[in-house]
Amino acid sequence: MSEATTPHLVVVGGGFAGLWATRALAKAPLRITLLDRHNHHLFQPLLYQVATAGLSAPDIAAPLRHILRAQKNVEVRLGTAVDVKPDARQVQLSDGTLLAYDYLLLATGATHGYFGHGEWAAHAPGLKTLDDALRLRRRLLLAFERAEAEPDPEERAAWLSFAIVGGGPTGVELAGTMAEIARHTLKNEFRHIDSRLATVRLIEAGPRVLPSFPPDLTDKAQRHLASLGVEVLTGTAVSHVDATGYRLGDRFVPARTIIWAAGVTASPLAASLGVPLDRAGRVEVTPDLSVPAHPEIFIGGDLAAVRRENGQPVPGVAPAAKQMGRHIAKALQARLRGQTTPAFRYRDYGNLATIGRMAAIVHIGRLKLSGVLAWWFWLAAHIYFLVGFRNRFVVLVNWAMAYWSYQRAARIILGAPEPPAPPDQDD
Amino acid sequence: MSEATTPHLVVVGGGFAGLWATRALAKAPLRITLLDRHNHHLFQPLLYQVATAGLSAPDIAAPLRHILRAQKNVEVRLGTAVDVKPDARQVQLSDGTLLAYDYLLLATGATHGYFGHGEWAAHAPGLKTLDDALRLRRRLLLAFERAEAEPDPEERAAWLSFAIVGGGPTGVELAGTMAEIARHTLKNEFRHIDSRLATVRLIEAGPRVLPSFPPDLTDKAQRHLASLGVEVLTGTAVSHVDATGYRLGDRFVPARTIIWAAGVTASPLAASLGVPLDRAGRVEVTPDLSVPAHPEIFIGGDLAAVRRENGQPVPGVAPAAKQMGRHIAKALQARLRGQTTPAFRYRDYGNLATIGRMAAIVHIGRLKLSGVLAWWFWLAAHIYFLVGFRNRFVVLVNWAMAYWSYQRAARIILGAPEPPAPPDQDD
Repeated sequence: MSEATTPHLVVVGGGFAGLWATRALAKAPLRITLLDRHNHHLFQPLLYQVATAGLSAPDIAAPLRHILRAQKNVEVRLGTAVDVKPDARQVQLSDGTLLAYDYLLLATGATHGYFGHGEWAAHAPGLKTLDDALRLRRRLLLAFERAEAEPDPEERAAWLSFAIVGGGPTGVELAGTMAEIARHTLKNEFRHIDSRLATVRLIEAGPRVLPSFPPDLTDKAQRHLASLGVEVLTGTAVSHVDATGYRLGDRFVPARTIIWAAGVTASPLAASLGVPLDRAGRVEVTPDLSVPAHPEIFIGGDLAAVRRENGQPVPGVAPAAKQMGRHIAKALQARLRGQTTPAFRYRDYGNLATIGRMAAIVHIGRLKLSGVLAWWFWLAAHIYFLVGFRNRFVVLVNWAMAYWSYQRAARIILGAPEPPAPPDQDD
Repeated sequence: MSEATTPHLVVVGGGFAGLWATRALAKAPLRITLLDRHNHHLFQPLLYQVATAGLSAPDIAAPLRHILRAQKNVEVRLGTAVDVKPDARQVQLSDGTLLAYDYLLLATGATHGYFGHGEWAAHAPGLKTLDDALRLRRRLLLAFERAEAEPDPEERAAWLSFAIVGGGPTGVELAGTMAEIARHTLKNEFRHIDSRLATVRLIEAGPRVLPSFPPDLTDKAQRHLASLGVEVLTGTAVSHVDATGYRLGDRFVPARTIIWAAGVTASPLAASLGVPLDRAGRVEVTPDLSVPAHPEIFIGGDLAAVRRENGQPVPGVAPAAKQMGRHIAKALQARLRGQTTPAFRYRDYGNLATIGRMAAIVHIGRLKLSGVLAWWFWLAAHIYFLVGFRNRFVVLVNWAMAYWSYQRAARIILGAPEPPAPPDQDD
């Protein structure tokens, strides 16, 4: 087939869904353009480690071009998609370019959702990209620096007051690690403050943290968080956030560092399709993961609203996104051959969450693990799934050293040539 | 001695001079405040590796608080000194704070000098801090992305035209590594450009690169650079730099990526002392490294204008800064005991420079090495001197992998959510 007649697939988003679909199409009679606004694929499950200075940004990322260098039917393009025109079969980029497609895979994932309070975003940043993680790292480390330089006891307490909103896996991981940083990593390093007196509060609106796990495992996780020094508040919603703190019901809590790990909203690109979306902005897809009125458009990863056979939604986790990516590759190849496309079935390989140093919970079928054994399981799974041999090995070395010593290898404040500023000047 | 009567030493700058002096004063009857605008000590000799994506920023940096956590007479303070008032014995910080001292060590190093052309700085950035290195990395990697997306052949060639101004060790290291990136690392990763056609030009105004080495070693270095694909121009001065390129004599060369590794100017803090400075803005110190009119002020590292016994200036390298730091600690302790202070004598342990993958030159007394053997020597010395066991080991692993595979572990563009922009929008 000549280039002119080979169908053109545009994949928007080089995350797990987009990258796994692209790789599964290595032998397909397609020209593929993989578009991403970053030059790298990101191993998002370890992003909290970059934010908490345990890993460097490059440890959990790999250049998309490098991953796909040998796949000759793919062109990687750095750019931001801002609009999809389904009728014209075009994707518009932020620089005005129109990218024509025969088939489209939208896999741009999700971003933070503030339940209609977008103004909270500046004071309670979330964690989705490496830039988010480096900003968060800077905020965390600077909060201790500012407390150390602050003569006023109330201000100082506010700098040492940390809150994480949202008790899902990311919230639990961040809370556990931040408590360890305050209690162990930094304990002898300041002269005017005792970092161990920092408050780390995890706030969850629902009745328990990690609601995707069975209650007995959740109980263990909450007890372990408490033993690390995390104050866990369940059944409690944050009703206000600003630069000086947050409100729980009618109680205002001064705090300079608030992290948002609660709502998730699908990428706004979904709205440009003009098709039905669910409450979180995700696209309601057909069983083969395409769009009802546009069979040439597939949706993968966190952007797709998909249900399991038991009626439960498919969770927004990396294994689900990879499965969708591979399924879409299969469905598209069936489509090219004129065959009917199979329906997507999510295979649940289990659920893992880590709580802090050497503790995790694991739920696989009837198997339930907690504590150190679960942590080793979690570690092995995450190392294994990191893209690329080098990353795996270096990550392992960094972690081994971090766990032996309680030290964190990446405690480097970047982009902060200036000294502590008052909170209203903060980013 | 009570805190009130213990003399207060303020050390400005946590580089090699400041940190080595501080550590050597662990048992001195002094209260020490170490002030730095960054939270970390930086191993500057490997900064070019961060800029060229071989190492992560945290690989070559360690938090000053962590290094000094057990030294009870030291307080680390994050802040920027903007003025010294020698008569009042005070250092003024950018937030207005006045820090009183009994003794002062100024060790704020050097910054880029543009020979009176400060307007070139925006188009030809230099390399002194981790933030500089990450910006440079982003520019280098984005240049190839922009070339790939550029339909116009002349524009494309300009994106693939790289120039390094200044043939000292940093310029040579950058040029060699950039040529390797273009020739090897990226060679199969683009679809519209051949990265091997990129031009990497090293421009030196003097008669040869690496002028601190004997001519026969310099010759070898230049030949090796040429074999890597670097175009070395000696005896050639850049007469103009802007966003579109640079001028050599009456010839204008289009280029989008120009790196400044030429002039060095002492930190502007020296001027606030009101004492004689040399042409590069360094403080003319007494033999014990203090300031003539102010014996309570010491100057260390690149900020000090010091001559060797043979009349040659002491070079601006890490070993010299460490020796000065240790000497100042000794001199200060002699001063505290009422003894006369010794004169500083620079011990030259040799001169090393690396040229690229597996090649370096070494000059130690009568010993001259070049090629692979010199490179192993260089590598061992640099790994050995990196602060902290963890860093050394991880750096070694990263390098070993990079050298085996020609791959570079940190090819991650940070802070660049937007697609290629035209040159006038570039930072």
